[in-house]
Amino acid sequence: MIRSAAVVGTGLIGTSLALALVRRGVAVHLIDENESAARTAASLGAGTVGHPHDTVDLAVLAVPPAQVGPALGTHQARGLARAYTDVASVKSEPERGVAASGADRSTFIGGHPMAGRERSGPLAACATLFEGRSWVLTPTAATSRDTLNTALSMVALCGAVPVVMDSGAHDRAVAQVSHTPHVVSSLLAARLLHLSPDASRLAGQGLRDMVRIAGGDLRLWGDILESNAAAVADVLTELGEDLQVAVAALRSLATGDPDARAEGTTLLADLLGRGITGRDRIPGKHGHPAPACTPVRVLIGDQPGELARLLANAAELGVNIEDVTIDHSPGEESGLVELMVARPTAFSMAQSLTAAGWRVQRMRRPDTAPDPVAV
Amino acid sequence: MIRSAAVVGTGLIGTSLALALVRRGVAVHLIDENESAARTAASLGAGTVGHPHDTVDLAVLAVPPAQVGPALGTHQARGLARAYTDVASVKSEPERGVAASGADRSTFIGGHPMAGRERSGPLAACATLFEGRSWVLTPTAATSRDTLNTALSMVALCGAVPVVMDSGAHDRAVAQVSHTPHVVSSLLAARLLHLSPDASRLAGQGLRDMVRIAGGDLRLWGDILESNAAAVADVLTELGEDLQVAVAALRSLATGDPDARAEGTTLLADLLGRGITGRDRIPGKHGHPAPACTPVRVLIGDQPGELARLLANAAELGVNIEDVTIDHSPGEESGLVELMVARPTAFSMAQSLTAAGWRVQRMRRPDTAPDPVAV
Repeated sequence: MIRSAAVVGTGLIGTSLALALVRRGVAVHLIDENESAARTAASLGAGTVGHPHDTVDLAVLAVPPAQVGPALGTHQARGLARAYTDVASVKSEPERGVAASGADRSTFIGGHPMAGRERSGPLAACATLFEGRSWVLTPTAATSRDTLNTALSMVALCGAVPVVMDSGAHDRAVAQVSHTPHVVSSLLAARLLHLSPDASRLAGQGLRDMVRIAGGDLRLWGDILESNAAAVADVLTELGEDLQVAVAALRSLATGDPDARAEGTTLLADLLGRGITGRDRIPGKHGHPAPACTPVRVLIGDQPGELARLLANAAELGVNIEDVTIDHSPGEESGLVELMVARPTAFSMAQSLTAAGWRVQRMRRPDTAPDPVAV
Repeated sequence: MIRSAAVVGTGLIGTSLALALVRRGVAVHLIDENESAARTAASLGAGTVGHPHDTVDLAVLAVPPAQVGPALGTHQARGLARAYTDVASVKSEPERGVAASGADRSTFIGGHPMAGRERSGPLAACATLFEGRSWVLTPTAATSRDTLNTALSMVALCGAVPVVMDSGAHDRAVAQVSHTPHVVSSLLAARLLHLSPDASRLAGQGLRDMVRIAGGDLRLWGDILESNAAAVADVLTELGEDLQVAVAALRSLATGDPDARAEGTTLLADLLGRGITGRDRIPGKHGHPAPACTPVRVLIGDQPGELARLLANAAELGVNIEDVTIDHSPGEESGLVELMVARPTAFSMAQSLTAAGWRVQRMRRPDTAPDPVAV
């Protein structure tokens, strides 16, 4: 149970966390060496400026990785809080810093909310920043059960989902899913420095999405990459090896030699294929798999616009169609359309389309068979 | 003036173009070796299946790059159309193919609409696919004025924006803004193949955006990269050189040596800085620069929640605030907030905030001074 908290460092993450806690009734004290930042956070309704008179339930050290250990020592000595966590985007370095500081390790647990924005500072803060996001906690053998539970309460108050990992596994994971992608985004964006104005007009959403994160704060990202340098270098080295293969494949394809071209085609297809498979390793936006789909099969004639009318009718039913395939048998007048829809909605959709005059293949009721099938 | 057209190849682009033309009253004939694809396009309302009886105004060869030259020869011999264009995503190879085919080059102009979707085939087609997009046209010295004007009409009917370039400049540009980004997306996605389930839960929107295009059709992208292999290899080679520097910088940062670390920090900051600058070379989503902004300055007290109330009040006025800065002078009770808003809305916003009781710095009326300034 968290009734009071201190947030040390009122940047984007600290202020967002303070706003989330205030909204859930926690008394939050805002502490920042830059008094203007703390007052800005207070202006936003994130709490009151200054040290609390009594020991609070939780102190969040929202400071750079290298400062977590020293800050813990300082604030423990003053009796600021009963439990402490940090929000740094690497976890090994702060853990080493805490051990080196000689502070009491039982009241400390490392933390990293997987949330951020392109803008930094308290004015970019938002109480809902962590909702539905993963929040990694990295307890050590020294971390007390009470400290772990206080941190879990904080994560729950922010609407986030806790993930317990050890600090090394966390740092390798963020090198793969966050830090290396940032470097790659910068590498790609740096290639645009000498783009002609006409060429820049050809840029589409794909490129924009890929260079978006390259716009992140230079100093912040320099610090993050420095704190996780070895793990990022490892991933980037592996990526560089694939890149050399891709260049060699493309050079082979640019020659007139048929054998070289065939080898280039194979190498490139392998790379693109691994990309497609690797991409599927990432869960959907909210971490949930898509609901299981089932086909609703409809026979249509080949009058112009027939399929467009079916899709418009289906859309009116408010059912989200995940995919459509159509099979026109050669020489036949009609085609079989498969509308893939989420299993729970398939049966009622089939009934509605039938009622609207479409020739829908009959399906079993979902209550008599859990997997409706066309019969 | 285009009254009739033939679309040869009813995939995503061909069918979308046909839908756009039909909507503007053009009689469209759909031709595809795969009759089922042409019938599917017709089912969507994209035109009628089969060759026209009379010569049409425009034929669009929506076929792979290597097939443009042979298709032009075949259809010119049959008298299909008065003007021809293609939609291949590279332009040098089709241009060479047309020259080699011995076809009449005066009635041909290369074209490339900068639009696409992750899904392919006629069922992914959409009449509005090209609206607001750039559409590159690559006339040669042999292209007739009539052919250029017919192609410009087609682009206008689709609501797109024509960009005239030579084929070589086009291919170098798309290597930078489209083909290399695709390979890089695949390289990054391939790194996720061995991601642990816990690690995959840490993936955020940045990574999702960066690997989205890696999910594109393997065969289609293999063909595109093969057709522009040399230009993509050049850009990727330059990117690989920067990547090696980044790895070396990270390895230096991972050592304990202060000199090496300092050098690593400098190299990394240079790369990230070039990324930020390069990213700014891409115009905004619709190719327009953001409207010029001007500050509206408001004095606020330091009561908790004061800034949140101001931002809420400003939001109620429906004005889009581009940026906010706040200056709390140390020891003073009030802060000066600068709300950056589009110039045309600044004056009325200042008046409304004043009327709502806020202490707004006075601004000149926009009609007496084109650049309103605080006085």
